[in-house]
Amino acid sequence: MNTTAYAYNAWYPLAWSRDIARTLVTRRVLEEDLVVFRNEDGTVAALEDACPHRLAPLSLGTLRGDAVECGYHGLTFDCSGQCVHAPGMARPPASFQVRSYPTAESMGMVWVWMGKPALADRSQVFHLREYDDPGYSVVEGDALDVQANYLNLADNLCDPTHVVFVHKTTLASASGQETRVEHERQGNKVVTWRWVLDGPLIPVFEGLKNFGGNVDRWHYYHYHAPSVAVIDFGSAKTGTGAPEGKRDDCIQMYACHFITPVDQRSCVQHWLVLKNSPSDPAIDARLRANLRLAFDEDKRVLEAIQRNEDKPRQWRRIPLGIDGSSIKMRRIVQEMAATDE
Amino acid sequence: MNTTAYAYNAWYPLAWSRDIARTLVTRRVLEEDLVVFRNEDGTVAALEDACPHRLAPLSLGTLRGDAVECGYHGLTFDCSGQCVHAPGMARPPASFQVRSYPTAESMGMVWVWMGKPALADRSQVFHLREYDDPGYSVVEGDALDVQANYLNLADNLCDPTHVVFVHKTTLASASGQETRVEHERQGNKVVTWRWVLDGPLIPVFEGLKNFGGNVDRWHYYHYHAPSVAVIDFGSAKTGTGAPEGKRDDCIQMYACHFITPVDQRSCVQHWLVLKNSPSDPAIDARLRANLRLAFDEDKRVLEAIQRNEDKPRQWRRIPLGIDGSSIKMRRIVQEMAATDE
Amino acid sequence: MNTTAYAYNAWYPLAWSRDIARTLVTRRVLEEDLVVFRNEDGTVAALEDACPHRLAPLSLGTLRGDAVECGYHGLTFDCSGQCVHAPGMARPPASFQVRSYPTAESMGMVWVWMGKPALADRSQVFHLREYDDPGYSVVEGDALDVQANYLNLADNLCDPTHVVFVHKTTLASASGQETRVEHERQGNKVVTWRWVLDGPLIPVFEGLKNFGGNVDRWHYYHYHAPSVAVIDFGSAKTGTGAPEGKRDDCIQMYACHFITPVDQRSCVQHWLVLKNSPSDPAIDARLRANLRLAFDEDKRVLEAIQRNEDKPRQWRRIPLGIDGSSIKMRRIVQEMAATDE
Repeated sequence: MNTTAYAYNAWYPLAWSRDIARTLVTRRVLEEDLVVFRNEDGTVAALEDACPHRLAPLSLGTLRGDAVECGYHGLTFDCSGQCVHAPGMARPPASFQVRSYPTAESMGMVWVWMGKPALADRSQVFHLREYDDPGYSVVEGDALDVQANYLNLADNLCDPTHVVFVHKTTLASASGQETRVEHERQGNKVVTWRWVLDGPLIPVFEGLKNFGGNVDRWHYYHYHAPSVAVIDFGSAKTGTGAPEGKRDDCIQMYACHFITPVDQRSCVQHWLVLKNSPSDPAIDARLRANLRLAFDEDKRVLEAIQRNEDKPRQWRRIPLGIDGSSIKMRRIVQEMAATDE
Repeated sequence: MNTTAYAYNAWYPLAWSRDIARTLVTRRVLEEDLVVFRNEDGTVAALEDACPHRLAPLSLGTLRGDAVECGYHGLTFDCSGQCVHAPGMARPPASFQVRSYPTAESMGMVWVWMGKPALADRSQVFHLREYDDPGYSVVEGDALDVQANYLNLADNLCDPTHVVFVHKTTLASASGQETRVEHERQGNKVVTWRWVLDGPLIPVFEGLKNFGGNVDRWHYYHYHAPSVAVIDFGSAKTGTGAPEGKRDDCIQMYACHFITPVDQRSCVQHWLVLKNSPSDPAIDARLRANLRLAFDEDKRVLEAIQRNEDKPRQWRRIPLGIDGSSIKMRRIVQEMAATDE
Repeated sequence: MNTTAYAYNAWYPLAWSRDIARTLVTRRVLEEDLVVFRNEDGTVAALEDACPHRLAPLSLGTLRGDAVECGYHGLTFDCSGQCVHAPGMARPPASFQVRSYPTAESMGMVWVWMGKPALADRSQVFHLREYDDPGYSVVEGDALDVQANYLNLADNLCDPTHVVFVHKTTLASASGQETRVEHERQGNKVVTWRWVLDGPLIPVFEGLKNFGGNVDRWHYYHYHAPSVAVIDFGSAKTGTGAPEGKRDDCIQMYACHFITPVDQRSCVQHWLVLKNSPSDPAIDARLRANLRLAFDEDKRVLEAIQRNEDKPRQWRRIPLGIDGSSIKMRRIVQEMAATDE
């Protein structure tokens, strides 16, 4: 099995904000188990999910105010991880503690900082400007458990060329012609893009807008290492100047993927979509269902790849030009992981 | 993963006597697989469950008299483990044998000796005097599969302090106050005890006796290493002298736990209760159900702890004063295991 | 765990011919995963089931003519394993290829050559003359997944002595007497045989022919290393000279077992029976069901043995005279595996 180094000093998506309340829930991130709850002031606490006495998961215990009481012997840890009660002790020593992880909220998600707490800067949590733009509506998706290394999912999210093969009935147009892909590294981000000119509308866009003819289609895959992808994709009537930058009358979406690396062979893929049209229960439900279908198509391929990678054998591999952006993306993650040392 | 050394020269609970008859059943003890059956004279035979020819489990074969015929080629082993028939041989050589394990019966259980047969002394099999006392009735429980190292269960059975946190609705009183725990090593036994004075009756005692007021409650945890726990617990009306040794009018129970270590991460917990009141189908059924509920509460915590212990990481641990008796218990087991060498 | 070396330069049963058509199916042989399909000319293609670009299984892709298009990025491999299309390339280099395995068909099965392609000689694929004899009818069985090393199944198919213990109600006669077993190596084949004279008909033969009395029964186990067994078994009326070679009026069957070694602890057992009586839907269905019952009896024992072999311990083993033929069979396989080097 191959292993990839984790970049610890980074904000990772932890959970949908809607799923974190005044109860104890668990999440696993970078092979660490966390107990997560919302404090009385609405902030989110994330603690190591093991009482250091006997290793009972704190998540089996009880939330008392902003502290967790262990369900085995009642040791109690506040939201900073400090033990504030231990049986038979008037006052537990300062060394009695569990690790506490900095958290933040942005775009309907709770984010967690897995590295050195002193380096956690909440202003760096990922946020997309359009999320606050009243011209956009949000379609929140779900959280797919993907049994694959998160970087294999990241490869997929740096790669427009798989669409026509994996997403025949959802995201690809009927024409399916091959067009040139470009990419570029920008700081800790890789952008990969492709245009498909003068083609039919793709299936998931049907019914959103009637252009009365062929469209020009763009796909800009922004991969923010280590684990956020934003796919800027849309269509405008052919001949109205979209390739030159005019998107005045268009279907515009941003598919945001927030990936939680769980361990070397699994991750959670949270996704939401921003679209430049108002919320509409029927349209949004159909869009959500279609995108879920598409992401399940990826999941099926990625999990099969993971099973092959896990086989105890040497594979002969061949490189392709389309790998350029994912090679850059993985290099950024390696750099981030190396900086952690 | 941590591993603990087994003490082989000891009697271990193997099965309820009621479950061993004239058929072949299997049990796993200290990572060894046994085929078990009752001989025609009522004694119990326990043999290694693998025919040494091709390793077919003997338990797939046929019981013939006091011998087992292998279900693959008919090699036959008597209850001493000697091969008495092999295909194509007039008389199998003396070296054709499987291991036979000494057994005994006590307290409705079959016990097995996993060490050197010459050291097996049936007078040392565990037996509680009250089991034969007509003033007591027996409520036999069941056999819980606990996916945890047996010493983690043993920790639990040396420890009165977990009760108020794990067994809120069954074994703990509503008051839940913290009281001092004492413990003492006595030979290969550790006794741990605690008194709770002038408190309400605990839930599982309700309906057994009406004291018309508060009670004094005792808990004496007798852990006989390596794998028998007897919890002497009861209640008497406050002010009638129970703490000074008078238990004339009281509810008295002995919860007996007979633990079979299966392997490093699982064990079987057989349990029964002796109580100083007559058998009563309705009361006994309710008591059995409530205790089962309580032991399932322990099981849930112990299995979660085991999963944490199995994770490939270093844990920071903190010691507490309440660990004293379990530390002594584990030391006794280590001494017994070391003596085996 | 023990491991056995594979003989690569050999024809192995891959699938029933009836199961290979113009769709992509997968098979696992000697720990290698293959995608299998029928070409337009009716021949069978077997390719390594992993696209060397990202390791997506080709079996998730699409069959186009006699080529497979990968379901991730559209790389296309023809039935010789050569890449004939890759995204962004006018013409993929000759080094872009997956392994292709020679195949053949015989006796209703597809066979595959797992070793050096240059050594594959289709004239060496196993074929039984009686398969083409109009005096015989074929009863095709199924494909049992056996969770055991294929050589343990091979042991079983070199061994007439287990029948009376494992197949009491199917293949053994009521008398069950012990008779002498003979064996002999012939090239890369081991033949093991036994006669049971003047006994009752065995259960699976009942209703096929009425001899009006006792029969002489023969069993010749032909094991063609590494993975084909043909059991020539039948019965003729006692006193009509069968032991001397006269089989004029008899029930004659050939049970053919074609074993696919999947990995060190599993294999697939394809079986069919040739019998010297015409096809008859009712009789054939009953025979098929009874034999399936018998082979499931073996499967149960073999899987239990495998579980014992997998346990991390040293077993004391005893050898028997009846092991002679399986020892010879395993030696042949070792020789074949050593020759592969």
